[in-house]
Amino acid sequence: MITFDDLTPVYGGVCAAKGFTAGSVRAGIKAGSEKDDLAMIYCVKPCPAAAVYTRNIVKGAPIVLTQRHLKDGKAQAVIVNSGNANTCNANGMEIAELMCELTADCMKIKKENVIVASTGVIGQQLSPEPFEKYIPVLAGELNEVGSTDACKAIMTTDTRVKEFAFEFTLPSENVTCAIGGISKGSGMINPDMATLLAFITTDAAISLPMLQRALSDANEISYSRVNIDGDTSTNDMAAIMASGLAENELITEENEDYEAFFNALCAVMLNLARETARDGEGATKLIECAVMNAPSEEDAALISRAVISSNLVKAAIFAADANWGRILCAAGYSGAEFDPDKVSVKIISENGEVIVCENGCGTDFVDSEAHNVLLADEITIIIDLHEEGAELNQSIAWGCDLTYDYVKINAEYRT
Amino acid sequence: MITFDDLTPVYGGVCAAKGFTAGSVRAGIKAGSEKDDLAMIYCVKPCPAAAVYTRNIVKGAPIVLTQRHLKDGKAQAVIVNSGNANTCNANGMEIAELMCELTADCMKIKKENVIVASTGVIGQQLSPEPFEKYIPVLAGELNEVGSTDACKAIMTTDTRVKEFAFEFTLPSENVTCAIGGISKGSGMINPDMATLLAFITTDAAISLPMLQRALSDANEISYSRVNIDGDTSTNDMAAIMASGLAENELITEENEDYEAFFNALCAVMLNLARETARDGEGATKLIECAVMNAPSEEDAALISRAVISSNLVKAAIFAADANWGRILCAAGYSGAEFDPDKVSVKIISENGEVIVCENGCGTDFVDSEAHNVLLADEITIIIDLHEEGAELNQSIAWGCDLTYDYVKINAEYRT
Repeated sequence: MITFDDLTPVYGGVCAAKGFTAGSVRAGIKAGSEKDDLAMIYCVKPCPAAAVYTRNIVKGAPIVLTQRHLKDGKAQAVIVNSGNANTCNANGMEIAELMCELTADCMKIKKENVIVASTGVIGQQLSPEPFEKYIPVLAGELNEVGSTDACKAIMTTDTRVKEFAFEFTLPSENVTCAIGGISKGSGMINPDMATLLAFITTDAAISLPMLQRALSDANEISYSRVNIDGDTSTNDMAAIMASGLAENELITEENEDYEAFFNALCAVMLNLARETARDGEGATKLIECAVMNAPSEEDAALISRAVISSNLVKAAIFAADANWGRILCAAGYSGAEFDPDKVSVKIISENGEVIVCENGCGTDFVDSEAHNVLLADEITIIIDLHEEGAELNQSIAWGCDLTYDYVKINAEYRT
Repeated sequence: MITFDDLTPVYGGVCAAKGFTAGSVRAGIKAGSEKDDLAMIYCVKPCPAAAVYTRNIVKGAPIVLTQRHLKDGKAQAVIVNSGNANTCNANGMEIAELMCELTADCMKIKKENVIVASTGVIGQQLSPEPFEKYIPVLAGELNEVGSTDACKAIMTTDTRVKEFAFEFTLPSENVTCAIGGISKGSGMINPDMATLLAFITTDAAISLPMLQRALSDANEISYSRVNIDGDTSTNDMAAIMASGLAENELITEENEDYEAFFNALCAVMLNLARETARDGEGATKLIECAVMNAPSEEDAALISRAVISSNLVKAAIFAADANWGRILCAAGYSGAEFDPDKVSVKIISENGEVIVCENGCGTDFVDSEAHNVLLADEITIIIDLHEEGAELNQSIAWGCDLTYDYVKINAEYRT
């Protein structure tokens, strides 16, 4: 059971944990862009490092190279550019290797300890010059308050900085640790062209196997439950580094310290994932779909994901139209098994709540009241399948509405 | 190998085949609608009849009742309304049964020989009155040129009449037969609120098992390869009736007559499916994606469907932007196995053709030339996976672009 009660929100993002600095620079990777487009995160020592990657079989060169570099489970720096995905281009691997080499040279670390990521348009040639010229500049500008700049530099169509950090206590020795993360992504999210990139740092001391397990498990209930447009990017990556500088006893098994760490990691990733959904391309509303009392947890997950992924549900919610038949329809084609005649659907927001469906049929709700509930910025859809004895078979997924601006952003992305 | 060389296009739609009449009436099922909303197709004798249905587990009452009625493989009439899906409402089965009973009474046939279908908003109560009042009127107005009227009456957000008919010759006895169909559907198509409904009639004499096999197989390469928005409707149905009035020797096995019949059925369904994609909600372009030289036919089908389903590909094509990275990205997450480094992508239209990707990397095509190719109304994307010895592992799928009007139509569907 994840609880956020024992967490203290703190400033600093990826620099909140001891040992980490970050920064950004404008390297001019995409012609005409005025923003910073190159970011680095650095740790004073090599760390256990784990990552999860896109399941797309067309993978960017940075993904392939990072997978190779993390085979030994160690990293000391992250180098990331926006403005070009460095994917499906002739010199992709060459550029990715160059980015790591330049970072390693400047920071005097091993190039195999560099995580590299890129985001932007797929299939474009990349010139080595911006990296040759600006990675040395960037290396000289890293600092302990550079997290937000780094986050901004990796944004593409994102409109919001996605950055969270918490302090938490490991109970066995009462040691205080910090964990923080930044991420980008608002389209091509399943989690995809606003590729999802997330970088998380902690000063907790944790073994590599436990770090990888925590990241993979937290990913299942956070980023894997977010969908903007159903397109899974070629470049998705979420990576974590653990400096160990909090000097707690190394976490090597699923004990109470692991639980506290996992809880804090989930807090960072759930918050980042939820903000990713809210910042979906063109979105005006965050949609949260909770499914409960399902035949199985997997069925609950299938339904929650299908509902927040349905273009028709998303378009109706954009218009604040309680067209709940589309919700039931999406549940029906999700692949989950359930009895349609038992389903109830409730819509909740800060403006109130309305039960639109009971026992699989429409209620006599008042359209104008439902419309008012749906006018809010955050909409929660609760689907109760009323399966008996299935209290724990539940799931939450996050998405956003489908708007004119989604079309506009993606019709004009390259121009 | 399907060939359309031996087919003669004819007028008449579902009335082209001997024995069939059709018609429509305005019953006022949806308040404020000015169009006809109730259609009937009738045959002078009971026919072998087969159907394929939505895979959504939330099914409209008309689907459930038609499945029951077609258990004996016989039908003599089709009754269809638009303006209300008669789904997820308390009196759905009651209304569906009433529609069949009234049709049976008026036409003096068995109610079990009536196919019933509905399309429109899900979850709305339906009054029996329009049916009680207007099915008798409709029954008196059936005629041999009523196919187009019937087609118009079942349209919802459709903007085009989808109606085709062909004459073909059964070679064993040189008998000429006719086959024709009408369909509706432009959103909630995977194939879904512009629910897909298709009704096909033929005067060929064919046994029920062969009729069902032909329909199911033709469906696999036609409607199952169309996607507008990924939402699978609660009410999809494609049904066929075979009057046998061409008086050919009954087709009971996969002989040359079956091949000729299957070929003609495919011609009707492929044309209807292609027009469905062209008429996708808000669409300005028909997108056809052909995949060739794939490791397997299934891989080819997965890729072609993923590409025409990608919101990002669809939005780029709306803008005539050759953002081919999104095409490769969609292929990559389709679930198909292939070597990304071998892929080539070509875009073709009446304005010319352009190779945008070879060996998994972008070519140095000229953006303005690609833009010009993409300005046409029909765009074909050819993806060659260059798997050796795999000439026959190919697939075609049809979709449309994603436009402002898709959002507009679906945000305001109920208003």
